[in-house]
Amino acid sequence: MISLAELQRRIDAGNLSADAAIGQSLEAIAAHERTIGAFVCHDDKARAAKAGPLRGIAVGIKDIMDTADFPTEMGSPIYKGFRSRGDAAVVAALKQAGATIIGKTTTTAFASSDPTATLNPHNHGHTPGGSSSGSAAAVGAGMIPLALGTQTGGSVIRPASFCGVAAIKPSYRLLPTVGVKCYSWTLDTVGLFAAGVEDVARGLAAMTGRPELLPGSAVTTPRIGVVTQDFAGAPEAASAEALRIAVAAAERAGAPVRALALPEIVAEAWRAQPIVQEFEAHQALAWEYRENYDAMAPLLRGRLDESKGTPAAAHDEAIKIASRARHALGKVFEDVDVLLTFSAPGAAPKGLGSTGDARLNRLWTLMGVPCVNIPAYVAGGGLPVGVQVIARFGADAQALAAAIFMEGALKS
Amino acid sequence: MISLAELQRRIDAGNLSADAAIGQSLEAIAAHERTIGAFVCHDDKARAAKAGPLRGIAVGIKDIMDTADFPTEMGSPIYKGFRSRGDAAVVAALKQAGATIIGKTTTTAFASSDPTATLNPHNHGHTPGGSSSGSAAAVGAGMIPLALGTQTGGSVIRPASFCGVAAIKPSYRLLPTVGVKCYSWTLDTVGLFAAGVEDVARGLAAMTGRPELLPGSAVTTPRIGVVTQDFAGAPEAASAEALRIAVAAAERAGAPVRALALPEIVAEAWRAQPIVQEFEAHQALAWEYRENYDAMAPLLRGRLDESKGTPAAAHDEAIKIASRARHALGKVFEDVDVLLTFSAPGAAPKGLGSTGDARLNRLWTLMGVPCVNIPAYVAGGGLPVGVQVIARFGADAQALAAAIFMEGALKS
Repeated sequence: MISLAELQRRIDAGNLSADAAIGQSLEAIAAHERTIGAFVCHDDKARAAKAGPLRGIAVGIKDIMDTADFPTEMGSPIYKGFRSRGDAAVVAALKQAGATIIGKTTTTAFASSDPTATLNPHNHGHTPGGSSSGSAAAVGAGMIPLALGTQTGGSVIRPASFCGVAAIKPSYRLLPTVGVKCYSWTLDTVGLFAAGVEDVARGLAAMTGRPELLPGSAVTTPRIGVVTQDFAGAPEAASAEALRIAVAAAERAGAPVRALALPEIVAEAWRAQPIVQEFEAHQALAWEYRENYDAMAPLLRGRLDESKGTPAAAHDEAIKIASRARHALGKVFEDVDVLLTFSAPGAAPKGLGSTGDARLNRLWTLMGVPCVNIPAYVAGGGLPVGVQVIARFGADAQALAAAIFMEGALKS
Repeated sequence: MISLAELQRRIDAGNLSADAAIGQSLEAIAAHERTIGAFVCHDDKARAAKAGPLRGIAVGIKDIMDTADFPTEMGSPIYKGFRSRGDAAVVAALKQAGATIIGKTTTTAFASSDPTATLNPHNHGHTPGGSSSGSAAAVGAGMIPLALGTQTGGSVIRPASFCGVAAIKPSYRLLPTVGVKCYSWTLDTVGLFAAGVEDVARGLAAMTGRPELLPGSAVTTPRIGVVTQDFAGAPEAASAEALRIAVAAAERAGAPVRALALPEIVAEAWRAQPIVQEFEAHQALAWEYRENYDAMAPLLRGRLDESKGTPAAAHDEAIKIASRARHALGKVFEDVDVLLTFSAPGAAPKGLGSTGDARLNRLWTLMGVPCVNIPAYVAGGGLPVGVQVIARFGADAQALAAAIFMEGALKS
């Protein structure tokens, strides 16, 4: 994989020109894209910007985000050839920081669950996950050092786990969703994929103008609470093993680790998440569903068919449960700095029939808390499996610092 | 003005065809639009839908909302001729309810403060207010029975007051902003303009599928707290008179009315609102500001120039103040059902140089609470002046019911 931090260090030291850094991504795309299929389109004449902390960094943008320089097709024939007038706020922030938008990455239709043709870079017989399929696969295949995705259920952390890359789903609205196709306004969260946690942190700090997100020189030891989300069903053996390995590594590195049970209201919020998601999707995708029913992707259409007619009162109640659960979860963080849990139910499923299951992610999206994926284990078939580190709402710097601690612990 | 409720009653009774109701709006547009200039474009061959509670209702849509059937130009040459692929969620909701989208109404550039050429229907020498200038003026001139606008500072309630129409800025996110050009994601709120409060309530109930928003047969008497927002500066004589008249009418109608002082944290939130608004605008309009600086409307550009470089920490702090103020405001509603206050500093300013000042609205937008404008007084020059009724977050039905009480009290 291409490390963003390493590129920055070489560019800053004058050992690599920003254009040569972009050229490295273009060569990697030329070498791997035909096999992996991570891009909807890309600019093979892309050049570096002259200034900014992200000059020389080629970034892939999930194809539900508006880009003035590329079409935005939402993974759906309904948006074939659609050109937005401007850039999504996060795309503008990347350009402002000097990054080069190198292309648009594949997405399941409207960031739902209908798989794209993208292959898992670690095993071509498996899904890269979704909905941010192309972004996770492009970084995992070593084509680009940074990519943007979105998570409404588990669409950042799960594909990151499947593709063996670091990723952050930041606190709700740390990154604006302006110009990003909406599925659920309560849940949609823009996230970043990169080779390692430091790379992710540097990308996020540059995009937000928040230097406090950059890793400090001293690694602090977090107090860790391990949660297994029993309400969400049992993990497969590969994910259980990833968590076991991560816990052992953390303990070896000197972190206080303890198992935690989450309050019942949090489990209730897990059950309420799909109500929020699908009720809002019916409004966010009302034009598509009403006027382009036949062109809708089948899994998404089926989901909307099933959830049709959900009363507004059910959504109101789900939002109230979420609010109470956020409060209760805040109290859990009085005793630990971060939570550690599964990033996905197991390794990437075989075939391209499914992008996997968001059941171990969806709670955290509804809670709005920062989640960072760290690869922890390689299962049979060479398939990576991650764990996620979760901090309290707004403590993105703490989530990243603890993830760097975990990353170090897992390497030693 | 054209009453939505009256049209519905006549259509339901078989005394008016839905197409004839649309025809009535088309005739009124033909008669007044050349003078008022409330529309960017309209469909003079519009027909009624066959079914739905809003069949026969012609609706004007503020031109920052995506419409599949009309261009969406944001009040700016930067978006000249721009066609979205689909409809904004609120536009789709209107169509689903059987309404006819009759055209796009004028907006200040990106819903900020640069005036449009639209005239106040009650006095052509004055502004209709903004940013939802065309929507307020089109309803006030009797051209259409319903229009959508948005409020980030005071862009629904203020023009409603200036144009002598009823309007609601509902609770934050009761109506989705999906497909509505963003200025500030914490503040932007879609609202409705109509002839009277019942008309507004019927429109909102049909759009949201929430029958509880419809006025009941029995009018209940609300406990009213009067607030003068001294932290926001003094009102002009016309608005002071409007509030005096409204208070006297409420007391005459038997409502318990008392003056209330708002907690200091609420005044702090009033001071924090512009930080939230402009910090988020810099991200929401980053592409426009960065790549189309010369084409930006001058007042908006000046505002962005002035607020450039606001640190993220200032926004974080403002959001925290808002959260504490929302909590404190909730406690104020333990003793009263609604608040009553000024809708604007005075009657519509003379000329078209300014759309007026949002200083008496911006607090309520940040609080996310439902606000309903009711015309209360006619000042010199035939200029209407409104007052607003405000309920606790989520109590939109209560806000509408209290506004109907006030409307009745003011008529008797």
